Amino acid sequence: MSFSPTSSTPAVVLLSGGMDSCVTAALAAQEGEIAVLHSDYGQRTEKRERRAFAEIADRLGARQRLVIDQRYMNAIGGSALTDDSIAVPDADLVAAGAGEIPVTYVPFRNAHFLSAAVSWAEAIGAQRIFIGAVEQDSSGYPDCRPAYYEAFNRLIEEGTRPETSVGIVAPLIGLQKAEIIRKGVEIGAPLDLTWSCYQSEDVACGRCDSCVLRQRAFEQAGVEDPVNGEP
Amino acid sequence: MSFSPTSSTPAVVLLSGGMDSCVTAALAAQEGEIAVLHSDYGQRTEKRERRAFAEIADRLGARQRLVIDQRYMNAIGGSALTDDSIAVPDADLVAAGAGEIPVTYVPFRNAHFLSAAVSWAEAIGAQRIFIGAVEQDSSGYPDCRPAYYEAFNRLIEEGTRPETSVGIVAPLIGLQKAEIIRKGVEIGAPLDLTWSCYQSEDVACGRCDSCVLRQRAFEQAGVEDPVNGEP
Repeated sequence: MSFSPTSSTPAVVLLSGGMDSCVTAALAAQEGEIAVLHSDYGQRTEKRERRAFAEIADRLGARQRLVIDQRYMNAIGGSALTDDSIAVPDADLVAAGAGEIPVTYVPFRNAHFLSAAVSWAEAIGAQRIFIGAVEQDSSGYPDCRPAYYEAFNRLIEEGTRPETSVGIVAPLIGLQKAEIIRKGVEIGAPLDLTWSCYQSEDVACGRCDSCVLRQRAFEQAGVEDPVNGEP
Repeated sequence: MSFSPTSSTPAVVLLSGGMDSCVTAALAAQEGEIAVLHSDYGQRTEKRERRAFAEIADRLGARQRLVIDQRYMNAIGGSALTDDSIAVPDADLVAAGAGEIPVTYVPFRNAHFLSAAVSWAEAIGAQRIFIGAVEQDSSGYPDCRPAYYEAFNRLIEEGTRPETSVGIVAPLIGLQKAEIIRKGVEIGAPLDLTWSCYQSEDVACGRCDSCVLRQRAFEQAGVEDPVNGEP
């Protein structure tokens, strides 16, 4: 696999350190230089996620990196991912499948990440922002649907300098998790460096939504999870 | 003047501590309870602005208050308000009037504030977000126009829980600065507690865009600035 740039301006990639953002970053890196952005928003497993971010950025040869402190989201609360008074529930995929929004939802979360990405894109002259949003298997988060990104692109048009041309790309949005894994394997995305668990930083808990979705997806893809069995 | 609530849910008000947000907060407080939100985004005069925020919140009887740390905007840079390597220029209102965007522009800044306001509104059950954006006299910032807020309201619809109903209100958007002052005086908004200078925290510099616009507006309104002459 080669990540040699074919585009002259960098693309900003939102890179959490999870599987979806890893595959997204690898796809973006195939097209040109990537500038990777990571948010610390007070999530329980941020330390482990930031390690994944740095290692993926290294593997993909990302020169421009920005880690931003958005822990004020903790003060806003309302989500089990940031509020220590709300326990992370075990996976309840039936409820998620029925359209219920789980307690791990941070209200309007992606807008905070995307706003930072747009500001940074405008500052460094990037024209595209890649995000690993996935509609299917996304636990019903309302900001993981194509209509949301269409609305955000419209907002960027209205809210930036006339000469700015920045657009959000969500290359995985229509894929199933198993398809994302197969695509990641196909292009050599560093899935071995990713972290998915919402609960734990050393060994994945295997019980939270994110762990259960990951396990199921690797099974469906017929691929062994390179992270399983790690100490 | 009375600020007795007439609405059962609070309204979130973005309150920087400047004149426009002060008048906006006073208007919102006439209609019901207000929950005031202030962002520290690394601006030079944040300490003074935060004092203005707290004093205005006291005067208007705001019980719910949230100050958020968005200083990561410093790292994103690209603006004289946050980047110490770019000097704040003296006012160049001719250029602003001609549609040029000044160096004090933080790329996509209002989206960071509004995203926090939406998250907080969803967490506390607020249905309206007030922002003191003003199209005229706003130095050409692209995120101070009605079309921007229409696009943001569309984004909120797409990006929040189906049962959430939150909308942005920009009651000053069509007004001139002088009209805002007259309205503020009319409803008893605490203009004496506001801070506008971009450059200084003790005595207003009188030379930056914001100072010059303020002076001109008070002159046009035929009102004496209650902040002038303060030590």
